[in-house]
Amino acid sequence: MAMRSTTLVYDFADAAHLGRDLLGGKGAGLAEMTRIGLPVPPGFTVTTEACRAYMATGQVPEGLWQEVRAALARLEERMHRRLGDADDPLLVSVRSGAPVSMPGMMDTILNLGLSARSVEGLARRTGDARFAYDSYRRLIQMFGNVVLGIPLERFESELAAVRQEAGAAADDAIDADRLRALCERYRVVVQRESGRPFPETPWEQLELAVRAVFDSWNNPRAQVYRRLNGIPDDMGTAVNVQAMVFGNRGADSGTGVLFTRDPNTGEAVLTGEYLANAQGEDVVAGIRTPSPVASLRREAPELYARIEEVARRLESHFRDVQDIEFTVEGGTLYLLQTRAAKRSARAAVRIAVEMAREGLIDKEEALKRVDPADLERLLHRGVDPTARVPELARGLPASPGAATGRAVFDADRAAEWARRGERVLLLRPETTPEDIHGIVAAQGVLTARGGMTCHAAIVARGMGKPCVVGCDALRIDLEGRRAEVGGSVVAEGDVVSIDGATGRVFLGEVPLVEPELGGDVDTLLAWADEVRRLGVRANADTPEDARRARAFGAQGVGLCRTEHMFMAQDRLPVVQAMILAESEEERRRALDRLLPMQQSDFEGIFRAMDGLPVTIRLLDPPLHEFLPDVESLAVAVAVAEQRGDEGEEAQRRRELLRKARALAEKNPMLGFRGCRLGMLYPEIYEMQARAIFRAAFAAARDGVDCRPEVMIPLVGDVEELRRMRDLVERVYREESERAGRSLAFPLGTMIEVPRACLVADEIAEAADFFSFGTNDLTQTTFGLSRDDAEGKFLGFYVERGVYAHNPFEVLDAKGVGGLMRIALERGRGRRPGLKAGICGEHGGNPASIAFCHAAGLDYVSASPYRVPVARLAAAQAALAERGGRK
Amino acid sequence: MAMRSTTLVYDFADAAHLGRDLLGGKGAGLAEMTRIGLPVPPGFTVTTEACRAYMATGQVPEGLWQEVRAALARLEERMHRRLGDADDPLLVSVRSGAPVSMPGMMDTILNLGLSARSVEGLARRTGDARFAYDSYRRLIQMFGNVVLGIPLERFESELAAVRQEAGAAADDAIDADRLRALCERYRVVVQRESGRPFPETPWEQLELAVRAVFDSWNNPRAQVYRRLNGIPDDMGTAVNVQAMVFGNRGADSGTGVLFTRDPNTGEAVLTGEYLANAQGEDVVAGIRTPSPVASLRREAPELYARIEEVARRLESHFRDVQDIEFTVEGGTLYLLQTRAAKRSARAAVRIAVEMAREGLIDKEEALKRVDPADLERLLHRGVDPTARVPELARGLPASPGAATGRAVFDADRAAEWARRGERVLLLRPETTPEDIHGIVAAQGVLTARGGMTCHAAIVARGMGKPCVVGCDALRIDLEGRRAEVGGSVVAEGDVVSIDGATGRVFLGEVPLVEPELGGDVDTLLAWADEVRRLGVRANADTPEDARRARAFGAQGVGLCRTEHMFMAQDRLPVVQAMILAESEEERRRALDRLLPMQQSDFEGIFRAMDGLPVTIRLLDPPLHEFLPDVESLAVAVAVAEQRGDEGEEAQRRRELLRKARALAEKNPMLGFRGCRLGMLYPEIYEMQARAIFRAAFAAARDGVDCRPEVMIPLVGDVEELRRMRDLVERVYREESERAGRSLAFPLGTMIEVPRACLVADEIAEAADFFSFGTNDLTQTTFGLSRDDAEGKFLGFYVERGVYAHNPFEVLDAKGVGGLMRIALERGRGRRPGLKAGICGEHGGNPASIAFCHAAGLDYVSASPYRVPVARLAAAQAALAERGGRK
Repeated sequence: MAMRSTTLVYDFADAAHLGRDLLGGKGAGLAEMTRIGLPVPPGFTVTTEACRAYMATGQVPEGLWQEVRAALARLEERMHRRLGDADDPLLVSVRSGAPVSMPGMMDTILNLGLSARSVEGLARRTGDARFAYDSYRRLIQMFGNVVLGIPLERFESELAAVRQEAGAAADDAIDADRLRALCERYRVVVQRESGRPFPETPWEQLELAVRAVFDSWNNPRAQVYRRLNGIPDDMGTAVNVQAMVFGNRGADSGTGVLFTRDPNTGEAVLTGEYLANAQGEDVVAGIRTPSPVASLRREAPELYARIEEVARRLESHFRDVQDIEFTVEGGTLYLLQTRAAKRSARAAVRIAVEMAREGLIDKEEALKRVDPADLERLLHRGVDPTARVPELARGLPASPGAATGRAVFDADRAAEWARRGERVLLLRPETTPEDIHGIVAAQGVLTARGGMTCHAAIVARGMGKPCVVGCDALRIDLEGRRAEVGGSVVAEGDVVSIDGATGRVFLGEVPLVEPELGGDVDTLLAWADEVRRLGVRANADTPEDARRARAFGAQGVGLCRTEHMFMAQDRLPVVQAMILAESEEERRRALDRLLPMQQSDFEGIFRAMDGLPVTIRLLDPPLHEFLPDVESLAVAVAVAEQRGDEGEEAQRRRELLRKARALAEKNPMLGFRGCRLGMLYPEIYEMQARAIFRAAFAAARDGVDCRPEVMIPLVGDVEELRRMRDLVERVYREESERAGRSLAFPLGTMIEVPRACLVADEIAEAADFFSFGTNDLTQTTFGLSRDDAEGKFLGFYVERGVYAHNPFEVLDAKGVGGLMRIALERGRGRRPGLKAGICGEHGGNPASIAFCHAAGLDYVSASPYRVPVARLAAAQAALAERGGRK
Repeated sequence: MAMRSTTLVYDFADAAHLGRDLLGGKGAGLAEMTRIGLPVPPGFTVTTEACRAYMATGQVPEGLWQEVRAALARLEERMHRRLGDADDPLLVSVRSGAPVSMPGMMDTILNLGLSARSVEGLARRTGDARFAYDSYRRLIQMFGNVVLGIPLERFESELAAVRQEAGAAADDAIDADRLRALCERYRVVVQRESGRPFPETPWEQLELAVRAVFDSWNNPRAQVYRRLNGIPDDMGTAVNVQAMVFGNRGADSGTGVLFTRDPNTGEAVLTGEYLANAQGEDVVAGIRTPSPVASLRREAPELYARIEEVARRLESHFRDVQDIEFTVEGGTLYLLQTRAAKRSARAAVRIAVEMAREGLIDKEEALKRVDPADLERLLHRGVDPTARVPELARGLPASPGAATGRAVFDADRAAEWARRGERVLLLRPETTPEDIHGIVAAQGVLTARGGMTCHAAIVARGMGKPCVVGCDALRIDLEGRRAEVGGSVVAEGDVVSIDGATGRVFLGEVPLVEPELGGDVDTLLAWADEVRRLGVRANADTPEDARRARAFGAQGVGLCRTEHMFMAQDRLPVVQAMILAESEEERRRALDRLLPMQQSDFEGIFRAMDGLPVTIRLLDPPLHEFLPDVESLAVAVAVAEQRGDEGEEAQRRRELLRKARALAEKNPMLGFRGCRLGMLYPEIYEMQARAIFRAAFAAARDGVDCRPEVMIPLVGDVEELRRMRDLVERVYREESERAGRSLAFPLGTMIEVPRACLVADEIAEAADFFSFGTNDLTQTTFGLSRDDAEGKFLGFYVERGVYAHNPFEVLDAKGVGGLMRIALERGRGRRPGLKAGICGEHGGNPASIAFCHAAGLDYVSASPYRVPVARLAAAQAALAERGGRK
């Protein structure tokens, strides 16, 4: 038995100083409301410490029952009734209440204290036998189910039989006698199912109920919920025992739920529902429809005024919107619970801003009140959360936003249908660069294979286009132009919808909600900008992306990936010609054709980001990404050979296969890519550098303030950076002379392989800035291919708690972050003040942004839609630091 | 002009204290021989500092020519002749001499000082006009070629014309008059080709020759040599100017080369060649065949005695075998050069051991004298280095040793022919696990594709079987059962040879030399064992490997890879059945069949390593490595469909394709492998752990001292290790109870991803030992797939000096080594005394072993054939540390 020296049970009236860790959220709310004089039915709380001791030893701690008995005695005295009394019994509710809200645990037992004997006293005392037996029958049912584990249907079938015998349409048409008989039948059920009689002594009921709450802490649903939400397993729950009040004692009684502001819109009006002459349970059962709480203003003005007063009192006391449960018994208001209200993303922003304006909280508190993820939700069209739409399947949420369109199964058709004005959704096993025009044409993309960084996911995210990938359940039959999902068939032209924020797939059209922007968000973000230290840039590959990012408040482009420019339909053939070139000369000819195309891309971006820095990463992916894949080519060639096909196309495919095979890699992630391309084919980087400088000089001629920053990818040794710097600087001198203009441009590198972190002192000698490419750095640090892990073992790892988070979503502070700290320390040791940012997807993740702030980065770069998220998260990180310093 | 405060030119007689950095190797040798009174023609050395100043500024340093003139004047005085004198001219040689021997630079100009005028004086003085004009024509030719850059053929065509006019068969049949005319024609050539007359003033000749030596330091061949051998570019060369002596002045003159011991066998006998009445040049020209120097013992006993005396003197003075150039003029012996002799691997060992026994050097010095790589060379059959065999092609040297056999193109045939007694060589585009019986049956393996860690390379190295991979020139036509290389065709049954140490491929049989082992090697290694601190273990997957490793001195098995046991022909179908299993139950049935097979493997290894530790790594590679590859399956399925083939085999292949596709990974290196397999399919590791313990208990029953160590691969988070430890310990308890025996077994982990290094403190909590898997750690730290990089860009990187070494051969001390140091520091910080070793291929590389010693590892583990290498290298590392401490 665990040692203990403290009290385990506290009356609400004596507990307000103890806090939610010991009392649970519900208990703390009840104690605090009692303390400030609000009408709370009296009761007491068994602390979480009692639960923890019980979990540790399997036994209730010594002295617990004595304390409970003493508290109960005090309650009985206060209420002038005794639990189980034959004449005028005290009834109590028993409810769990953990320090954090946690669905899945045992919730509530009402009417505890009734027995075959005391129910008659209650009937006599209230003069309402029907009420008394109905209360008793509810107790047996709830207790039997949640404490004794008897399935509900065992009781419900008895109730149905009685209802049938009575010829009653609803339960409230069953009379007192039949209810008394039903209680008998319930007791038989309990004896049969649990092998023991229904406990008729109230004390036994109470003891079992308290144990049941303790036990429910470790039931499977609660365990899963804790794992998913990162709640410690050893926190434990409190138990609240409270005198019953009854909302079902006539027209001047009732029960309701109240929000001090509208939790959906955030508007400062009382919102909620009220059901007269009813208990909480009845609201849930849906027998009668509750009225808006506002209807009380007319129907019961005094009560409403009292509610308003209490609501105002609670909100200003707790300095947040409250979600309140109340009961009215004989015209008297009783409060049963208060807690901070859950609210929609939209409401969260409005409430925070308005409360700050009202002076209820300060601006910093307002910034802390909004979850950055809420902002992202506001910036995409989403599936209307109020709509009930059956889900067809679920994949990975690769790019947020919802989209609806007619299903097409190839890129050409997508483009063709889009040209004639159809909204289409592209369905593919997976996409390749050859599908790019189809992705451009489509409302969204859905693939059967691929992980969060597969081609479709990256391209769609870059375009801000909704995308769901890795939807295993989808079996696509390309030749038949159809797909099968579970039992359903999606034929070409059928309407399909996807929700890229959740990965859900729907058949047919779903109601969408448009992105919410405007005053309150702007206000909040302006406050964030006053507070944050981290700069926020955007990952943007096109002028359009850049404009969007700037509108969202980006202070520059932190990553412009040049390869996506290679993937456009009109460019891919030129890119392929470059790759297939057998000589440097031939390659240069193809590059000469690409040069003006890249130049115009860059020019557009420079104009969009006039006055702000634009970090351009030179070509990074392995060249085979621009070719069709080997397997499909090999099959086509083999089949053509089998057919004896010797046509020109067959020849071309054979040639393509030869080259694709030569370029194919076992581990392209670790292969011939990044600056390794520039080292062996300097003419490629030369073309890109030339395009950058020509674009900058051309735009500068029109008065644009161009601030290009050239970034060399995948550097692992300073020698790579030195040579690439020499190349870029040579091209700069040529172009500067040609244009008769000059330009200061920083040149830096991605830090995305572990070695770069360890030799960062050397690399810093040749780098004006570091940009942490944490996508690849995470892959190499863990030895974990994102494409292969997601959908295979990564889910298992996160679900089973091997990894606390998916490291591609939340930056791994100890491993990857440890390497980043080494890189910063060594890099800045050699070059003090070295600028450093992050351009992996973690740049848009709040927890990771907090790390970046703490590690001393200068900026984060996120996808355009996550720029507002990053601004807020950066402000929160700065505030947390101040808080930590106090 | 560079500042300088020191002398730039030293007479041999005054220079012995200066050392080779300043004098170069040749100059230092000449000075030292002069100092100890040996007969060296006098001369002087222009220092490397002069060269360095010249390279830095492009101009000879101030005062250099004055110093040279002064030294020349001293030499003239000493020799009683003057350079360019019309009556009795002094002739000198000019030779380069860098601090380290370096082919590719300008070598020698003889007879410098002759001119149209002085040649006549020489003719008169010697009474030998033919000798004088022959000397002059040689000067013009050598000077014109090496100083003025005139192609040799311009001179040779003139010589050929004169020879033809004279009707002479050889040059020495050309008389003095014709030689004089030839000198005229040579001077015309010089004027025509260089645009200037041949410099007739000896001083001009000397100045130009010295400059030419300086310039040759930076010629392309020299640069490449320096890069390949890691010689600093700013070292510079010295220039030696020495009075000529003539071996071509009659029967009592001559020239020769002498080794103080046999450089091939190491035997302590004088070895060398002598050519009477000749200059060094004539030996090279091959006009006459030199005699063994031993022939002088009979023909010129006094001279031979003098040579013996000098040789003995030099060897004991320099405490090493000397390679001596000498000339005899009129019976007098002159020494022109002495240096440490290059020697064969075999000789190196014998010489070191015998010199130590003779007391010439001590044991530690003997250990330092042998290059560890020499030992490896001794332990494999190799192509006889004296044989001249034309090379057919060249691939990557994947597994050392030479092999000859009849070419076969599939594994079944290899096995079939081997059964009937043929020696076969397996030629494949690349190999898969399905070829394993062919590899077992073959003498060696040759593949057209693949890098140093492709399947063929790993399997062959594991078996100690010669292997050449990635031989691009090889075009294999499997259906035609033939291959094409360049223009040649290799048909099935043709004899082919490979040299796995160099990657060379030959048509036909080549003469082989057997591995040399025995007394001297054993002696040397015993001395090494006295000195080294690092333990040496072996990577061994079979009992045979283990026995071989033990014979080579391994102190245990550092890495036993269990997957190779899965690849045997009779097991692969069972392994495939396990992989294709659709349920855990089905998988367990296949595993039950594998269990006794693995158990018997382990038992054999335990018996072979009785009393020594055996570190067993649980299954590591991704499962798809045991299936045929997707591309070939897809082609087979598509072709079958095209044919309308619906047979059972076609069905099976389709099923196999489906599964292979599901298992296929984009980056298998970073994929579902290592302990990730054990996490998701615990039944696999469970079977392996069971096999280990059953084997150990069975062997222990026979009195074998089994010391298994269980190693979990690819751990990146302590949670993985904790769970796998729980699993292994549970199986241990079950098997221990079953056997009624117990066993202490350490359980540890590979450290092979960067994250493991950073969280090594946490991992150490669950690990009894760390074993650095530096192959994978190098790949992940650099973000470099060995399979893809070798043969693509890695060669370029090493050749162009981006990387100083191939990081898969020599451990990258700063990056990978830096991570290892972090891991050791954190791991041992948490668990003091934590045992740590290395089991990557670096464990057999001397430079990497030195790092491991310095970093404080406990042991290295190398392939069996490299165990002796590692023993010696470990001793050298310990000695270097002592040296460093002095």
